Amino acid sequence: MVVVKPSIPWKNLTQRSLLKNFSPEDRYWMKEALKWALLGEGLTSPNPAVGAVLVKDGTLIGRGYHRKAGQAHAEIEAIEDAKKRGETVAGSTLYVTLEPCSSWGKTPPCTERIVKEKISRVVAGSPDPNPRNKPRAVELLPSLGIDFSWEILEEALFLNRGFYHRILTGKPWVIGKIAMAIDGSLSAGVGEERWISGIAARTMAHRLRMIADAILIGAQTARADNPRLTIRLVDPKGKIQPWRVIVSRSGNLPGDLFLFTDAFKERTLLFVKMPWERVLGELGSRDVGILLVEGGAEVLHQLIKEGWIQEVSFFLSPLIIGKQPLEDSSTDASFLSMPLELVNPSWQKFDEDMYCHGLLEKGARFLERVRVEYAQ
Amino acid sequence: MVVVKPSIPWKNLTQRSLLKNFSPEDRYWMKEALKWALLGEGLTSPNPAVGAVLVKDGTLIGRGYHRKAGQAHAEIEAIEDAKKRGETVAGSTLYVTLEPCSSWGKTPPCTERIVKEKISRVVAGSPDPNPRNKPRAVELLPSLGIDFSWEILEEALFLNRGFYHRILTGKPWVIGKIAMAIDGSLSAGVGEERWISGIAARTMAHRLRMIADAILIGAQTARADNPRLTIRLVDPKGKIQPWRVIVSRSGNLPGDLFLFTDAFKERTLLFVKMPWERVLGELGSRDVGILLVEGGAEVLHQLIKEGWIQEVSFFLSPLIIGKQPLEDSSTDASFLSMPLELVNPSWQKFDEDMYCHGLLEKGARFLERVRVEYAQ
Repeated sequence: MVVVKPSIPWKNLTQRSLLKNFSPEDRYWMKEALKWALLGEGLTSPNPAVGAVLVKDGTLIGRGYHRKAGQAHAEIEAIEDAKKRGETVAGSTLYVTLEPCSSWGKTPPCTERIVKEKISRVVAGSPDPNPRNKPRAVELLPSLGIDFSWEILEEALFLNRGFYHRILTGKPWVIGKIAMAIDGSLSAGVGEERWISGIAARTMAHRLRMIADAILIGAQTARADNPRLTIRLVDPKGKIQPWRVIVSRSGNLPGDLFLFTDAFKERTLLFVKMPWERVLGELGSRDVGILLVEGGAEVLHQLIKEGWIQEVSFFLSPLIIGKQPLEDSSTDASFLSMPLELVNPSWQKFDEDMYCHGLLEKGARFLERVRVEYAQ
Repeated sequence: MVVVKPSIPWKNLTQRSLLKNFSPEDRYWMKEALKWALLGEGLTSPNPAVGAVLVKDGTLIGRGYHRKAGQAHAEIEAIEDAKKRGETVAGSTLYVTLEPCSSWGKTPPCTERIVKEKISRVVAGSPDPNPRNKPRAVELLPSLGIDFSWEILEEALFLNRGFYHRILTGKPWVIGKIAMAIDGSLSAGVGEERWISGIAARTMAHRLRMIADAILIGAQTARADNPRLTIRLVDPKGKIQPWRVIVSRSGNLPGDLFLFTDAFKERTLLFVKMPWERVLGELGSRDVGILLVEGGAEVLHQLIKEGWIQEVSFFLSPLIIGKQPLEDSSTDASFLSMPLELVNPSWQKFDEDMYCHGLLEKGARFLERVRVEYAQ
């Protein structure tokens, strides 16, 4: 039994995740496959994270997950696992969280192997929108006499939201992250190295870095905080440090910043005076699926206003700092025409801090569109 | 068995509340007395909320609570209750959440009655600092041969924090309340009657009004929102509506505001160009024990800065409104020399909203001082 926890709480998503015509047995095994997929979360880019289990006569005979781009796909891992156990794969059912590939990438097409192994039924949990799969498994496998069905797991779509967004729009899925005191103050002081959040919340913030392919900040934050933007508080599990991206109007940044001098300096990108659409396009072309924006406030403000953010992660601490002077906002105009409500907001306590996570409508609609358009 | 919930979650307080030399039996009965005290929460001003149980041979023989100023004290209610049940009060133990009074108020001194009824032991849960009790029960009862002991329940101190603060400082205990979107925006629009919080959180906000003797707002909020500041979403249980207080620099307020025209207009006070110390002194002299400050931001800002706030209640909603333009605060000076950490912060979910409650150090220190100074 694998105990795996997703980086982002999925409570609300899970409640709606399974369509009604999923049988209890299929549901059970697909959830099992999803647990295996989670082991690859954040590690498989530019590939999606995928898990698979092989089931015969109600018993699991093999399981696997995609560990890293270039290595075996989940389906192949599950088949090899079954063989290692001395099981007969022929006649089994394959549960796989993402539609099997039907084209040559760094590895041979999984559909070929499925046919060769005489797997009799395939159940998929999410579509593969990669255009190079022609024809897709959804068409190919039935034409070869294999029983193919699927139900879209929202968890599987969500797990690979960066992959879907990059493939379908050419731009990364953007997560806006902020740490705030409950009076709205965003920082506890300049250069004081004073964290607003406690260690448990900061560890959660590093789990967010684990699922990111790039982390972006504004030049002002780079100058004021001189952050490293690396994964440190959690085990990086061999993950290459995410790109560190600075956006700047002037390009004037001190040469001795950690981002320019540390062991990962080749992973730093500086974009000068570039519109957001181009910044995101550049990152998409570098295979960035998930972009984590860590501030400052002005950068987040611009991205929210222009509608580039799909998901938000707010860390709130029970502090009154008084930086944000709590001005009466009753007379101020909003930069938004309508308030943005978080979709499926979840609150999670980390010691004395609170973490609020949710999708913006932009993100929720995108995932819904994938569900509807790619999985008829 | 009474099921009573305090208006404010007490989880953290409870963990520290009982001193070690409280026997398990005393602890059990004092907690029972506290449940009865809670029934009077918010209804007894200017008196404290008090509960009492009479116990004989390990069995409860009577219970009562103070319902309203002018009516019987909790001790007397418990004695009468025991008699109604046909129990013999003589020789019993009285558990009372606050030290019995020893002076004539609107009713005779409880110490007299305790002696008369031949109660053999009295256990008190908090001190009565009212200077007219001379000598206090703590001295008087032992001198009359009654076994008197106590342990201070932090819950009992907290329940009557307004009473203690008004008696000992002449000013009310101040609770700062604010409703905020997670981007720090404080209002969703002028005159739009658009609430930031959902109905569950707003009901909790009316529970806060239930424990308040006065509710204060700034003139700008009065003009922009035209609030009623009355208890509506919860049953007022016969409570007189709290004073509604407006502070204004100019005194120029539209005469048709609800606060000046509704059924409770005699309960509205307007303070013009008055320093906070005097505003609070005026309210204290009107027997205001708990003052709930509901905004606007500038008023809260001033009160926090000058150190008049003991307790804060923040309602956070999973919304991005964009009124607070998330300005980069890294270069702004704080109006506080040090961040204020909430003492014993608690987070509580109300539907999709989050409620953060805690004391400021000012408030926590005050209660600690009462505990140490009044209950040797």
